[in-house]
Amino acid sequence: MEKRIALIEGDGIGPEILAEAVKVLRCIEERYGHHFTYVPVCAGGCAIDRYGTSLPKESLEACLDSDSVLLAAVGGPKWDGVDPSIRPEKALLAIRKELGLYANLRPARIFSQLKHASPLKESIVEKGIDFMVVRELIGGVYFGEKKTETVEGELRASDQMAYSEHEIRRIAHTAFQTARKRNGRVISVDKANVLDTSRLWRKVVHEVAQEYPDVSCTDMLVDNAAMQIVKDPSQFDVLVTENMFGDILSDEASMITGSIGLIPSASLGESRRGMYEPIHGSAPDIAGKNIANPIGMILSAGLMLKYAFDLDEEQKRIEDAVEQVLSDGYRCADIMEEGKTQLSCSEMGDQIVKTI
Amino acid sequence: MEKRIALIEGDGIGPEILAEAVKVLRCIEERYGHHFTYVPVCAGGCAIDRYGTSLPKESLEACLDSDSVLLAAVGGPKWDGVDPSIRPEKALLAIRKELGLYANLRPARIFSQLKHASPLKESIVEKGIDFMVVRELIGGVYFGEKKTETVEGELRASDQMAYSEHEIRRIAHTAFQTARKRNGRVISVDKANVLDTSRLWRKVVHEVAQEYPDVSCTDMLVDNAAMQIVKDPSQFDVLVTENMFGDILSDEASMITGSIGLIPSASLGESRRGMYEPIHGSAPDIAGKNIANPIGMILSAGLMLKYAFDLDEEQKRIEDAVEQVLSDGYRCADIMEEGKTQLSCSEMGDQIVKTI
Ligand SMILES: CC(C)[C@H](C(=O)O)[C@@H](O)C(=O)O
Ligand SMILES: CC(C)[C@H](C(=O)O)[C@@H](O)C(=O)O
Repeated sequence: MEKRIALIEGDGIGPEILAEAVKVLRCIEERYGHHFTYVPVCAGGCAIDRYGTSLPKESLEACLDSDSVLLAAVGGPKWDGVDPSIRPEKALLAIRKELGLYANLRPARIFSQLKHASPLKESIVEKGIDFMVVRELIGGVYFGEKKTETVEGELRASDQMAYSEHEIRRIAHTAFQTARKRNGRVISVDKANVLDTSRLWRKVVHEVAQEYPDVSCTDMLVDNAAMQIVKDPSQFDVLVTENMFGDILSDEASMITGSIGLIPSASLGESRRGMYEPIHGSAPDIAGKNIANPIGMILSAGLMLKYAFDLDEEQKRIEDAVEQVLSDGYRCADIMEEGKTQLSCSEMGDQIVKTI
Repeated sequence: MEKRIALIEGDGIGPEILAEAVKVLRCIEERYGHHFTYVPVCAGGCAIDRYGTSLPKESLEACLDSDSVLLAAVGGPKWDGVDPSIRPEKALLAIRKELGLYANLRPARIFSQLKHASPLKESIVEKGIDFMVVRELIGGVYFGEKKTETVEGELRASDQMAYSEHEIRRIAHTAFQTARKRNGRVISVDKANVLDTSRLWRKVVHEVAQEYPDVSCTDMLVDNAAMQIVKDPSQFDVLVTENMFGDILSDEASMITGSIGLIPSASLGESRRGMYEPIHGSAPDIAGKNIANPIGMILSAGLMLKYAFDLDEEQKRIEDAVEQVLSDGYRCADIMEEGKTQLSCSEMGDQIVKTI
């Protein structure tokens, strides 16, 4: 199989972890006789430094020209002061929007080897944490009209939160289809007791639910969801919600696993071209030290093989190797514990390659 | 001291728990020679059933005529189908708005007697959980313009999220003043990498921070805050944020204490007339069974004595009594554990009165 993969290393630990993912992909190419072309794409803070904008036109075009995009991490306090219109995060949002990536999938699950890392107590962890957050990614308050103006002598800022039926319908389908391949339970999260967007959300989700009689569908208010994720995460199979709520709840969900350095994510649209990235940030404080955990990045490359290229076996191979390496007692600094062997970022990549 | 207190029992377990709070207030009246006049006010689902609207004009006026409002809980699935304009929650939002209650204070702390109830593991709980969530309560997406209209042949809904400088400034002052009476640390939560409202929020909070050189001020993104509350709640002293984020994070914060039935809240404005309510809901499933936990309601009445009437000693008396009752091994069903004595809702009220 021949594929073009756009590589955005971005900022902070981005370059280090992406290098390890490419190592793993090269190993898969060799093993399975594929041929991937890697196209380095400059975006994020480093692009601001070099080109004065976080997403130069050439970078966006390179993404659009590729079969898939692998992104490490963008942003950092260094660019906190730059104009909002060219912030590092803008690159991320623009790619999501321009590629039409309306569905963000983030698994929240506990590796059996890392149960102790969860901040939740054993009696809760034991019941199992294994669910998928399906977050709408290109609508809502992130992309609504933004204004800051002077009204009656003072500044007034506003962000429009908006959703149309078709935007809700397509992400609802993603959720129900995801649930079908899992345990058949969708929990849809909104704030229908307050927001018009949420009431429309609920209406459309219920309509779509009719088409999936084999999948159960329950509504949950967002404040309650924030509680339930901590209280009893085992109740969730697929949690679907709008962009802003999804940002908050998916991060909460990943934190209860205790190993955010290991969680991959996939952002998908109508076409097969998606974007794959670990859920953690650019961690500028540990950048350049070769101590970051590359597993979330490597598993993201795995998800890419599966979702974008239908290479299920290859993906499984990567996931199994990660599990094996963890079982063999190898850890990076973020999840280090007594009696285990601590590896650097590049050593972890090597170990996973060796295991594959 | 003579005071008029508006009592909104609302729906579900509301009447049961409010009765216990009044029991405790009567005991305080007697003990300290105060005279409180209790004005029953009909609002919420029960008002919809009786008057076709969740907040009849007379009810709002009774609140405005009082020195303080005690509210139990409103809403329930029974009214899920009613028109958004008369929903039970509308009453709550309207009272907050009409009384100008812009600051919602919700303590997240663990009673030493109930440490085991936290869903977090011991190593985290041991570091201490004791912080105050200061939530802006009458701005943002809750109160911005709402629209549902047909655009290009499909429905499109929108909610406006907006903040003006003065709205941010006053809640920032509340946060810094609260921190001064606590441990002098404010964490301000926003989504400044995406939202215009958050960028204005951050700017104004930083300006106000200048006036409190003795209080530290740090920014945190809302997705990160959702993680940090679970990962290391001991880092928080005062967490201040806008309405929607505050709704989500304050519920998450209360859940990590493991005893949401015990948490009171105060909603304050420029005048001394505030509204006091437990943070839990109306729990229709256990309504009428006399098994609800009245402690959150009773502690809310305590907060009212302190914040609205300056009766610090009386408030302390109530809080101490609650602590004592817990130490003596009395529990309601929600926090029952082996070896303790389970009390009904009214028995818990009696026990607290007896202890006062
Ligand atoms: C960096 C930021 C704009 C982004 C978001 O809020 O979507 C990030 O938090 C994420 O969740 O991918
Ligand atoms: C009932 C609802 C409108 C309300 C809110 O969202 O403010 C509640 O969740 C709360 O936090 O007091």
